[in-house]
Amino acid sequence: MLDQSTICAIATSPGMGAIATIRLSGEKALEIADSVFQSPKTGKKLAAEKPNTLHFGSISDGKELIDEVVVGIFRAPHSFTGEEVVEITCHGSVYIQQRILQLLITRGARMALPGEFTQRAFLNGKMDLSQAEAVADLIASTNRAAQKVAINQMRGGFSSELTALRGQLLHFIAMIELELDFSEEDVEFADREQLKELVARIERIIRKLKDSFQLGNVIKNGIPVAIVGETNVGKSTLLNALLNEEKAIVSDIHGTTRDVIEDVVNIHGTAFRFFDTAGIRETTDKIETIGIERSYNKLDQATIVILVVDTQNRFETVVSRIAKIRKRISGQHLIIAANKVDHGLPETIDKLNEIPLGDNEKLIFIAAKQKTNLELLISEMQHAVSLDSISEDAVIVTNTRHFEALSRAHESIERVQLGLKNLISGDFLAQDIRECLHYLGEITGEISTDEILGHIFKNFCIGK
Amino acid sequence: MLDQSTICAIATSPGMGAIATIRLSGEKALEIADSVFQSPKTGKKLAAEKPNTLHFGSISDGKELIDEVVVGIFRAPHSFTGEEVVEITCHGSVYIQQRILQLLITRGARMALPGEFTQRAFLNGKMDLSQAEAVADLIASTNRAAQKVAINQMRGGFSSELTALRGQLLHFIAMIELELDFSEEDVEFADREQLKELVARIERIIRKLKDSFQLGNVIKNGIPVAIVGETNVGKSTLLNALLNEEKAIVSDIHGTTRDVIEDVVNIHGTAFRFFDTAGIRETTDKIETIGIERSYNKLDQATIVILVVDTQNRFETVVSRIAKIRKRISGQHLIIAANKVDHGLPETIDKLNEIPLGDNEKLIFIAAKQKTNLELLISEMQHAVSLDSISEDAVIVTNTRHFEALSRAHESIERVQLGLKNLISGDFLAQDIRECLHYLGEITGEISTDEILGHIFKNFCIGK
Repeated sequence: MLDQSTICAIATSPGMGAIATIRLSGEKALEIADSVFQSPKTGKKLAAEKPNTLHFGSISDGKELIDEVVVGIFRAPHSFTGEEVVEITCHGSVYIQQRILQLLITRGARMALPGEFTQRAFLNGKMDLSQAEAVADLIASTNRAAQKVAINQMRGGFSSELTALRGQLLHFIAMIELELDFSEEDVEFADREQLKELVARIERIIRKLKDSFQLGNVIKNGIPVAIVGETNVGKSTLLNALLNEEKAIVSDIHGTTRDVIEDVVNIHGTAFRFFDTAGIRETTDKIETIGIERSYNKLDQATIVILVVDTQNRFETVVSRIAKIRKRISGQHLIIAANKVDHGLPETIDKLNEIPLGDNEKLIFIAAKQKTNLELLISEMQHAVSLDSISEDAVIVTNTRHFEALSRAHESIERVQLGLKNLISGDFLAQDIRECLHYLGEITGEISTDEILGHIFKNFCIGK
Repeated sequence: MLDQSTICAIATSPGMGAIATIRLSGEKALEIADSVFQSPKTGKKLAAEKPNTLHFGSISDGKELIDEVVVGIFRAPHSFTGEEVVEITCHGSVYIQQRILQLLITRGARMALPGEFTQRAFLNGKMDLSQAEAVADLIASTNRAAQKVAINQMRGGFSSELTALRGQLLHFIAMIELELDFSEEDVEFADREQLKELVARIERIIRKLKDSFQLGNVIKNGIPVAIVGETNVGKSTLLNALLNEEKAIVSDIHGTTRDVIEDVVNIHGTAFRFFDTAGIRETTDKIETIGIERSYNKLDQATIVILVVDTQNRFETVVSRIAKIRKRISGQHLIIAANKVDHGLPETIDKLNEIPLGDNEKLIFIAAKQKTNLELLISEMQHAVSLDSISEDAVIVTNTRHFEALSRAHESIERVQLGLKNLISGDFLAQDIRECLHYLGEITGEISTDEILGHIFKNFCIGK
């Protein structure tokens, strides 16, 4: 199962830097490193050095000196992969990085596949599959919430939740099987009421995890925000002000396509995804109604809807806009941004101040152009999703694969609940419970196929 | 003089990678690292650990866990900078890198200026200025020759050459000064003939170093190659074949401008700079003569001229082209690429085979479209400059600043030679010798000003 070859890859970001690190992992890591590394001081072989130590020296191909480097040694099983690991830190010239990598390959290492270091960590029992996946999420994290959830998952928060769940399911199965063994004697060892309670508890936990995916997805990809309103109320001014609020705009988050019409921006550590922003921008110079209708059609996908109204308009006009948007949305957070407050009609402002607001509604007076109250608007946006309140050990599902497995596990457990209600025999119940266990096992990798592993790790970057 | 603050920077290439390294250097490096790092196993402070060791642990800001990391410790003076150094290797998320960097800054570190780590290495006497500059050259090296020259310079090859030179100059000055001390007695301690010989030797060494800059510049920026020939002989086919020979095309080498019309490509470790390639490409679909004339005008800048001729043409036509180009060039290597050999006129090919060639001339039959004999052409191009023959410890000047200092030192030494010839008195000679010493001292940094240092290090990347 486990490939015995020694693998190597550049582990730092591609391109020129002050330094770069090349990672070797496998049985022959030290031997291969020793064949190209010379220590000027001690002359000692790396294989003879203590683990977790750093060594200055030079890399040469036997004829030519390639670079002066620092080499770090980690010994099996106390390394990231659980194997012998050598990390060579060289000068960050792309040419030198490639040259050392090629040299290691000629000396018997093989180029690592994407995610192969982490895959080996999994196969060597250093982490389960959900932890391995969290490594990739952590590397890809672009905001505080995503980093928080990923690091918790990497440290095994999700895994221990699943282990507890499996424990309860196995307990249930044990009770059912006991009943089956004595079925001829028509003894009912398992108290069906007790079983119902246990299954209800299990169902609640799985449902909670499954439902956390909605938040998890938002954390991973940014909180979807729609900015709507009539033409000339200041939508594009507001959008630009928000996008420029913090310099770290992560645009083109999907990277591969140029047609992305979403702007993602990290504001104070939370990622917001403003969608159909092209539409918003268009409305400033194109035919109005099309743009507006288009953004209204996307409202369902938003977690936060910002309705921009113009306080220079008559109160009745503004109120009818608010009524119109209220009809269109359900469940989303609605922030009414009453714009141009510096030049607004006093009557409109006064009356707006008194309109009744729902639980998920907020009214904020702003002047987008002057950036007045923008911070207040941002804090309301953050409050609407309150990612800050996510406790450090909250388990939130961010991975589509996990969500799918949980959904199937949930279907199984619902069948068990229905079966208990309909007094179905124990062997049928046990079958559904086993299915539930199977799906949960897929998440942590206790149940895994080469296909699943291949699919997971191919999306990693090389070097991890 | 030496700034006592502790500096930090991301040392690996910017952007997302599997891992990234943040470097801390200065008196408080360990103290600052200890304020954010926790070792789960030992609980020991980094300051209490041995130098050159690696430690697994976590970084937190006191409230939130930021990442799990590996920390390397180097203790003064046995580090790159000569100071206390801590290297934190974290997961390669840009967000996490920035977060850790910001945290270190809040704990008392300061963001490093470009090249500040290397500057400190220089100020702490870990390397001289020419070695420090070689670090930047090494990082920027994109081909084997550049890497070879840079690493030799970094390891002190140039420095020891300069030290020897200074020794000889000081010996000369000592002899002159002895003469001056006893000038009233009209004793001539310094044998003028002996002095003349010594100065001639010094002049030869400085001239050799100065002259090596031409080669050094070529190594650093690529060997300039001009491809010339009439329309439709296959220039652009040949260029494309050469550019595609190895995938690692380094285009837009100057980076900042899009108007660069040069293609630089590494072929088997040597960088060739094909210039006016836009002109060559144009000739395939634009008015011919303009393009041709333009590339002819650039011939002076080329080290290698490749004249493409078509063997399908009559011998007389081909020979007249060769004669024409011979008139235009002087000193450059001329490679006559007789193209379309697979469909050439037998008579043309036969007669071409017999034309007499000069010392710097080669004739190669190729078929650019079929890539026939392309390897032969490339090996002739490499042979023409024979960078491979540069021995590992050859001192080659690649730095404009060094070239300028050497040029001035050379002027001074020439004045000394002239002075000796004209029997000028010792005190005037000593003055010129001191000037010569001054310029040589500027190279190694024995003579340096804040201005010189500032100018050198500002071109480094941050983190080095």
